[in-house]
Amino acid sequence: MKLGRLNHIGVATPSINDSIIFYRDVMGATKIHEPFDLPAQGVKVCFVDTPGENGSNGTQIELIEPYDEHSPINGFLAKNPLGGQHHICFEVPDIHIAKAEFEVLGKRILGEPRIGAHGTPIFFVHPKDMGGMLTEIMESPGEGKH
Amino acid sequence: MKLGRLNHIGVATPSINDSIIFYRDVMGATKIHEPFDLPAQGVKVCFVDTPGENGSNGTQIELIEPYDEHSPINGFLAKNPLGGQHHICFEVPDIHIAKAEFEVLGKRILGEPRIGAHGTPIFFVHPKDMGGMLTEIMESPGEGKH
Repeated sequence: MKLGRLNHIGVATPSINDSIIFYRDVMGATKIHEPFDLPAQGVKVCFVDTPGENGSNGTQIELIEPYDEHSPINGFLAKNPLGGQHHICFEVPDIHIAKAEFEVLGKRILGEPRIGAHGTPIFFVHPKDMGGMLTEIMESPGEGKH
Repeated sequence: MKLGRLNHIGVATPSINDSIIFYRDVMGATKIHEPFDLPAQGVKVCFVDTPGENGSNGTQIELIEPYDEHSPINGFLAKNPLGGQHHICFEVPDIHIAKAEFEVLGKRILGEPRIGAHGTPIFFVHPKDMGGMLTEIMESPGEGKH
């Protein structure tokens, strides 16, 4: 595997609405996307763009709020009521090749590849196999053969 | 304030050496900088580059390991023995203007601006005022009047 773009950092929040106000009024974000529901993942999602180098697009902040009482991030928010850093997400050119590479290395993949917040296939790798960080692997938009 | 580049995410680790092997051999990082000590901050530091869009430099991973038994990240590692996401760092053009802006908003600045791992002035903002995230504010290299 070759290290890909850090697509986003996933930030859990008890309220996407409050976080939008924070990123707009405190941090000065100028591009905040429309929130949307991702019920298959149990979250509501809102992307905040950060500027990259030389006018490029930088790593996004992915705000995630529980979709319902079964959300996989409810436990995180119970421990961190204000929210906080939940996961990081790196891009790969092909999700199936990436999955095979992690598996060869004995890394535990959490479930099968599925469609993520950017509309491309993703999977998560167990934080205990990744230096304590819940890590999302995401096929780059426009690439791969999904 | 206008949202600046996400310069790096700070990742605590019990061993920078082990983390270098992880980022090189598992994640496929190709540019891993020389580790160095930052005793004033109580950490050893190693930057791992990630690729940005269109050949630009992306957000870095800042590996931080305790420098000694007084390190401010010892508590984090006691709770998270494998390491994990510790802070995020955004760039600003001028550290003193940024400090004044946060203070007007009632955000708690942790100490005075001081020289950070990239050689420019930085300060941290209390995670309880920042959606649960310990947030570093860093003057962009080559900018400002420090």
